Amino acid sequence: MDANQGHAIGYGGDPLTQRAIELFKKEFGEETEVFFVLTGTGANILSLQSGSKSFQSILCTETAHIHVDECGAPEKFTGSKLIPIPSQDGKIHPADLIPRLIGFGVEHHAQPGILSISQVTEMGTVYSREEIRILAEIVHDKGMFLHMDGARIANAAVSLGMEFREFTKDAGVDILSFGGTKNGLMLGEAVLLFNPELIANAAYYRKQAAQLCSKMRFISAQFIPYLEEGIWRLTAEHANKMAKLLFQQIDSIPEVVITQSVDANGIFAKIPKKIIPILRESFFFYDWNEATGEVRWMTSFDTTQEDINAFTDLLKATLKG
Amino acid sequence: MDANQGHAIGYGGDPLTQRAIELFKKEFGEETEVFFVLTGTGANILSLQSGSKSFQSILCTETAHIHVDECGAPEKFTGSKLIPIPSQDGKIHPADLIPRLIGFGVEHHAQPGILSISQVTEMGTVYSREEIRILAEIVHDKGMFLHMDGARIANAAVSLGMEFREFTKDAGVDILSFGGTKNGLMLGEAVLLFNPELIANAAYYRKQAAQLCSKMRFISAQFIPYLEEGIWRLTAEHANKMAKLLFQQIDSIPEVVITQSVDANGIFAKIPKKIIPILRESFFFYDWNEATGEVRWMTSFDTTQEDINAFTDLLKATLKG
Amino acid sequence: MDANQGHAIGYGGDPLTQRAIELFKKEFGEETEVFFVLTGTGANILSLQSGSKSFQSILCTETAHIHVDECGAPEKFTGSKLIPIPSQDGKIHPADLIPRLIGFGVEHHAQPGILSISQVTEMGTVYSREEIRILAEIVHDKGMFLHMDGARIANAAVSLGMEFREFTKDAGVDILSFGGTKNGLMLGEAVLLFNPELIANAAYYRKQAAQLCSKMRFISAQFIPYLEEGIWRLTAEHANKMAKLLFQQIDSIPEVVITQSVDANGIFAKIPKKIIPILRESFFFYDWNEATGEVRWMTSFDTTQEDINAFTDLLKATLKG
Amino acid sequence: MDANQGHAIGYGGDPLTQRAIELFKKEFGEETEVFFVLTGTGANILSLQSGSKSFQSILCTETAHIHVDECGAPEKFTGSKLIPIPSQDGKIHPADLIPRLIGFGVEHHAQPGILSISQVTEMGTVYSREEIRILAEIVHDKGMFLHMDGARIANAAVSLGMEFREFTKDAGVDILSFGGTKNGLMLGEAVLLFNPELIANAAYYRKQAAQLCSKMRFISAQFIPYLEEGIWRLTAEHANKMAKLLFQQIDSIPEVVITQSVDANGIFAKIPKKIIPILRESFFFYDWNEATGEVRWMTSFDTTQEDINAFTDLLKATLKG
Repeated sequence: MDANQGHAIGYGGDPLTQRAIELFKKEFGEETEVFFVLTGTGANILSLQSGSKSFQSILCTETAHIHVDECGAPEKFTGSKLIPIPSQDGKIHPADLIPRLIGFGVEHHAQPGILSISQVTEMGTVYSREEIRILAEIVHDKGMFLHMDGARIANAAVSLGMEFREFTKDAGVDILSFGGTKNGLMLGEAVLLFNPELIANAAYYRKQAAQLCSKMRFISAQFIPYLEEGIWRLTAEHANKMAKLLFQQIDSIPEVVITQSVDANGIFAKIPKKIIPILRESFFFYDWNEATGEVRWMTSFDTTQEDINAFTDLLKATLKG
Repeated sequence: MDANQGHAIGYGGDPLTQRAIELFKKEFGEETEVFFVLTGTGANILSLQSGSKSFQSILCTETAHIHVDECGAPEKFTGSKLIPIPSQDGKIHPADLIPRLIGFGVEHHAQPGILSISQVTEMGTVYSREEIRILAEIVHDKGMFLHMDGARIANAAVSLGMEFREFTKDAGVDILSFGGTKNGLMLGEAVLLFNPELIANAAYYRKQAAQLCSKMRFISAQFIPYLEEGIWRLTAEHANKMAKLLFQQIDSIPEVVITQSVDANGIFAKIPKKIIPILRESFFFYDWNEATGEVRWMTSFDTTQEDINAFTDLLKATLKG
Repeated sequence: MDANQGHAIGYGGDPLTQRAIELFKKEFGEETEVFFVLTGTGANILSLQSGSKSFQSILCTETAHIHVDECGAPEKFTGSKLIPIPSQDGKIHPADLIPRLIGFGVEHHAQPGILSISQVTEMGTVYSREEIRILAEIVHDKGMFLHMDGARIANAAVSLGMEFREFTKDAGVDILSFGGTKNGLMLGEAVLLFNPELIANAAYYRKQAAQLCSKMRFISAQFIPYLEEGIWRLTAEHANKMAKLLFQQIDSIPEVVITQSVDANGIFAKIPKKIIPILRESFFFYDWNEATGEVRWMTSFDTTQEDINAFTDLLKATLKG
Repeated sequence: MDANQGHAIGYGGDPLTQRAIELFKKEFGEETEVFFVLTGTGANILSLQSGSKSFQSILCTETAHIHVDECGAPEKFTGSKLIPIPSQDGKIHPADLIPRLIGFGVEHHAQPGILSISQVTEMGTVYSREEIRILAEIVHDKGMFLHMDGARIANAAVSLGMEFREFTKDAGVDILSFGGTKNGLMLGEAVLLFNPELIANAAYYRKQAAQLCSKMRFISAQFIPYLEEGIWRLTAEHANKMAKLLFQQIDSIPEVVITQSVDANGIFAKIPKKIIPILRESFFFYDWNEATGEVRWMTSFDTTQEDINAFTDLLKATLKG
């Protein structure tokens, strides 16, 4: 009796989902395929499964979310091996990548299948378009795909001052996990496929990954104002600006060593270990490396100048003892 | 900076999620463990993985949602074999089950591990508490677990006139997929574990199944009024009542053969095949068996008496030609 | 130092393996690809993985070895769903198959991907070439592959009086598990791929399935006399002949009801249950159905006329009491 | 009719397999459980699956066979994440291990479950009993298991001058892949489980891993003279001795830089890159690092003094040009 009662068609056949898909196509080009999913991990496992077979390997940095923060979901779902590459700044560099693109055609070795990069990286840095283009060229030459984990893609776009497609599809990215939750959406991400050979099976893998929800419109509808009215840009601009402000206020403090380039909305810093618990009484943040006293401070769409000032004041006061 | 900005703690540590968990414990008993997830398939794969190893088999009916409607997600996620058992009324009957509980201790055969039943069944019927108790006894004697796919559990509770725990935990169910979406929630289900040996690993499996969302409160908060104010009962009572009404209005029509007991909110009927497309112009419903002209009509929380009357009128008019 | 010491090249690059491959190509055609493996289950999981994706289903009979006797290895390795089809005679019949080839293009349903048949079937019957050709046509029309579990393929070839390729590749089989162990080889099977799209990944899947052994020549060398000198035919002819002889001797005994056509080297019969343990004191055989007293008697390459006579005598004597 | 014809009982129930198991128990203690398998990869995936769940991680060196040479079979079969740890000498060192034993109890992170070490290591070095004991203590304190990939365990025993159990079970190893093929056996390995909690499921996992062969006696029988008559020791002693001899002959050559301790039957050396192809015309060996000109020379049970002399002569002659 559903249709009679104003019920939307389930599982993504509804007009809101169709509208959201159109908006993504407007951003990324008509031939883009869009699959809404529920979680960041869901986006990544669908992305990786779409482009790999179980005997292939997925290369990423040692700090990549898919390697560190997803409880092994990529291995469980794809059956593939992850190859973590050490990196200081959260980026894959050609000199570290190329020596690992070996063993092709030898049945003893997992065959390199996907390079997965994060934009913004887990270290708060942002790849330039050219850096991405070069990585794409390297992996495409080997018959591999380039995946981008764009959990914080809006912050990257703002940082680069570019449209999304300039540093993704147009730079050679084949598969994109397009994040929404970390930039203000309630729940929901999207997987964008730019390569026609990847598209045929994605709908089935989404269902197998338990990422297809019956009332899809609640997910997809959030992306309509997000893309149409540029909300993504406003929230990400604000978050990046707050990070820059915090950076300016604390960079000159001698006890605070900023360890990464502040490209978007995250700051990595080494501070005296003893002050960490004091700061944490008032502000929530993660340790990055307990041994060295490195911490990660993230700003977001609802961080205020007052927050930044209060944090800086507390930091300075605590350091003085 | 999150805590400072009124941000809730992520991933289910927030007060709303804690409150929803308490409400579930009130319904099912203190020792119940509650894991919120995002989709019905997500609930089922977490349930099944929590209670099985890859060399075990999962027995269910041939029409079970886990067998027919989840694109093989249970096999993909657990690695286990599903053993479908033919059933006329959507229920597992001891006489069909017992001959399949064989091969224990023989390494060539997948070891029976879980019996999965659906309540309401996929054929619209409802197990009595005693039927469930007997199945639980049979499988527990073999060292197996009993899983219930409760996607429509509210409709079953109303149909039985019982509290949830009477026909689940207290009847011997070990693992429950507690559905919300089909009874009016926006998005979200819960997995309830009643057996202490099952609990240790479920949080990790939820994450691996991409069912842990950072803003969990948007899922869990829906369950607060649902359980506390008895919304589940109101919506399910209404849906069941509408099904009963429809049944009363059409049962005497000679060309309509009701094929299953109308225990909850679904009616299965064989009707002349040629009228199906005409009805479908105004009302959405699924074919159940195209060959025989069997269809499934579902009512829901927002079906009205007018809907039922309009449908009955159309059915009668169409039959007259 | 290996090469210096007369060591063969490992992992199948040796001349014996190359010779065995040539012999298979001679039997099945130049474009055949041959992958030696170690066990029957290994052959089947490599076969099924080569032709399926995890969201696809594999259809087979309810009695198929892949469904009943491999401890769920196909589901574990491929992630795919097995759909067991009831069958009286161990064969898939088009009328039972066609209604199950549904749900194509609907993401909720596992997509039918492979039909797997056994030749000789698990019920001792043999598909005619025409029966296979028709099944191939049906599944190819749907874009599916046809797999044959040929654990007893030699007995089938003898029964049909045909060359191997006539009822496999030439009849439309895409993937063949070519058995050796059950017809006298010490250890070792082969997977033959006839469809070029299936070949690219099989070597990697073989390694992932732990079926690539370093001293492959010990496996492959067994197939050289087996194929070249027609040992397969001698052993299978003998086994089939012994089954026929046993059939002739016992068919007229009123208490013995032969339940399946005796096409190859197996006889299925219902006998009084009480005599089963007495027979088993002298002869090893399996119960097929304990409830009905159905048993399975297999003959093999080293069964003698004396064995058959002794068995018949014992059977008759036991029945007389 | 099998038993009548002198057929052995299949799948390992035969007397030869039972005898081989007894011999293993004599070496390792009565409570040891023994599972014969077919390949080294088969031994490792059964070992790792017996001790892990899919949400756990398996730590090993970056050069470990399970990480580099098994085409991702461990991830495919267990669903678990492998964490490769850089190592100069092929050993896991506590200082590198301990910082990676983190994230326990946090659902976002794969939970450290198994430490897998190789003995002899992939770099030709041998762990002392004390080194193993310390690693076992570290991981047992965390509730983890210690796995040893003993593909070359005989060479290690000879190198250490110890009985097998002294540096495995008695040093805290829980799971052992006991290799035979690399030390002269035709085909076959064994998995030994020393921890009672690991034993219950191993037989099923072996079958699921396609490692259970029907004519198991052909595998197990090889281990009878191997263990009973100490063949393992003779072959390994010889191989190690030949490596030592080679080392003595070439260590003083200035252009040859031995890069690892020569503890067993492997020598790692850097030599001028241009001579590698010339040597390889007469002797088969692997490049270890093409970029640096590092190669790996292995000796084995049938390497002769003449081989060593011939190789040394060729090496010297080639270097002279």
